[in-house]
Amino acid sequence: MAAAKGTILSGMRPTGRLHLGHQSVLNNWVRLQEQYNCFYAVADWHALTTGWEEAKGIGKNTEEMVADWLASGLDPDKSTIFRQSRVLEHAELHLLFSMIIPLSWLERVPTYKDQIQKLGEMGKDINTYGFLGYPLLQAADILVYKANAVPVGEDQLPHIELTREVARRFNHLFKPVFPEPQGIVNKETAVLPGVDGAKMSKSYQNYVSIGADPEEIKRNVNLMITDPGRIRKTDPGNPDVCVVHKFHRIYNAGVLEGIETDCRAGSIGCVACKKQLSSTLEQQLAPIRERRDQVLAKKGYIEEVLQAGEDKARAAAGKTMEEVRQAIFG
Amino acid sequence: MAAAKGTILSGMRPTGRLHLGHQSVLNNWVRLQEQYNCFYAVADWHALTTGWEEAKGIGKNTEEMVADWLASGLDPDKSTIFRQSRVLEHAELHLLFSMIIPLSWLERVPTYKDQIQKLGEMGKDINTYGFLGYPLLQAADILVYKANAVPVGEDQLPHIELTREVARRFNHLFKPVFPEPQGIVNKETAVLPGVDGAKMSKSYQNYVSIGADPEEIKRNVNLMITDPGRIRKTDPGNPDVCVVHKFHRIYNAGVLEGIETDCRAGSIGCVACKKQLSSTLEQQLAPIRERRDQVLAKKGYIEEVLQAGEDKARAAAGKTMEEVRQAIFG
Repeated sequence: MAAAKGTILSGMRPTGRLHLGHQSVLNNWVRLQEQYNCFYAVADWHALTTGWEEAKGIGKNTEEMVADWLASGLDPDKSTIFRQSRVLEHAELHLLFSMIIPLSWLERVPTYKDQIQKLGEMGKDINTYGFLGYPLLQAADILVYKANAVPVGEDQLPHIELTREVARRFNHLFKPVFPEPQGIVNKETAVLPGVDGAKMSKSYQNYVSIGADPEEIKRNVNLMITDPGRIRKTDPGNPDVCVVHKFHRIYNAGVLEGIETDCRAGSIGCVACKKQLSSTLEQQLAPIRERRDQVLAKKGYIEEVLQAGEDKARAAAGKTMEEVRQAIFG
Repeated sequence: MAAAKGTILSGMRPTGRLHLGHQSVLNNWVRLQEQYNCFYAVADWHALTTGWEEAKGIGKNTEEMVADWLASGLDPDKSTIFRQSRVLEHAELHLLFSMIIPLSWLERVPTYKDQIQKLGEMGKDINTYGFLGYPLLQAADILVYKANAVPVGEDQLPHIELTREVARRFNHLFKPVFPEPQGIVNKETAVLPGVDGAKMSKSYQNYVSIGADPEEIKRNVNLMITDPGRIRKTDPGNPDVCVVHKFHRIYNAGVLEGIETDCRAGSIGCVACKKQLSSTLEQQLAPIRERRDQVLAKKGYIEEVLQAGEDKARAAAGKTMEEVRQAIFG
């Protein structure tokens, strides 16, 4: 019995080249495109909610990010890959939702006051109308495709709950147009540290890019912090406090036991251990790097992929909006 | 020296048939279309900000209202007549503005707290995200056509001031895209009372429709309250407290002096005075009623006018939005 395919919506803000910390999310997206009708959005409007100052780089950053998506295995023939800002129906649905959603629903979103404070401490004032409304824009992003599943991190679950409430309220006030989407928390998400042991992040400059070249890999692996208690290479090491080992856990999972035994026995030094990691990373990233180079070498290809995706997205969103307008205006 | 034509944006919420209280606004619109490039919007999204419950009637109400616009002399060859909700660029610009406008700017709009309280007392809860944002939607309505003039009532001037501030902020943060529009307060607006002496309003059921038929005119003129101190028709009357006289002031301005003298002298009775008003109204409304009937008799004509207007509006708004996207994303 062939059930109808479910629909997935997910997106990322265009921040430029992605790093290995994003890889588990991307791999999950690639897996999902086999089972679902997937919409993957470049969330360029969302990028403005916390910093319109950075808008200038969005074009270039979008190209870099989508190159990484394609290199990692997102397939434009299977998934709809598009810029949110080119599908005006997102803005229309957001506006219509705004008419039925109490201010208090948005004020009580847990991330709202947190983020205002956090960014305020960094000297950024984001107390705008749009920042208050961005979970509602997310709800519109999801519901305009009638997505019934949304891959998210644990911290995003309150936003999915809001989306469900918005769907319920609309369905109740007008007509049952929307599904109530489920958040899919990716259990396989392995938290990858940066080379300094902190969270891998662009702003910390402690990351390895997806599709990094051998030079970048080597340089970054060399920067990785190992067991500080280990002085000579024959000293027994403690892999639990070693960044290199955290990478082995993910990229050398098949031979992890041996690596750990050798480290604890002091029979492999940190330099050799790092070389092994570099070599594995190089092996695993090489095909991604090659695809990335191919994608970027075809002039205009990414723009073509996005525009084709936007046509598909607009058609799907337009269909939903016809139902929405009919439900509201009758 | 032929200066470039200025651009006007104005709109009305679709509340169905208009009444004589709207006539001075409409006559002003008709005058303006000779000197300006005019955009006249059916503000159907705005209608939702204070009552999504009434959305159902919007289709029919739009048709009735636009019939009155055309009957009163709005000319689709001169002006762009369209439904706001069919030009998604309004929603896009509203969303983009939301990213740069502090919440406090909206919270301090004078009408905001007033209206929440007023409608709250009527049992209507309008404390929604969209109601807070509606002056920003108005700013987008105006600026998406780069309108530099907006005919408004005195009470709407704070909204125009907000629009100017939004334009300034955008121009300052990105590029100088928008003019700072001026509010044009229609000095000729004569305040017409309802037949009971209160403000003429749909909700008070005290109005005379634009294009009313002789029966409706006669019935309503007969309901008009005259000087309560006048018992016999030979008693001297006081036109200052007479609703009929307030109508004469507008519709029989040329012969007003005679009417007033006769009333004060007791040489014309209220019944004859009302007959004179009915006859004048009938004369002046007959051509509007005829045009109204013609417009409504042509099946599909109003929809055609609106769709053609929407194509024109979309082209103009699209041009502005290209500049806006370029200014933001560079």
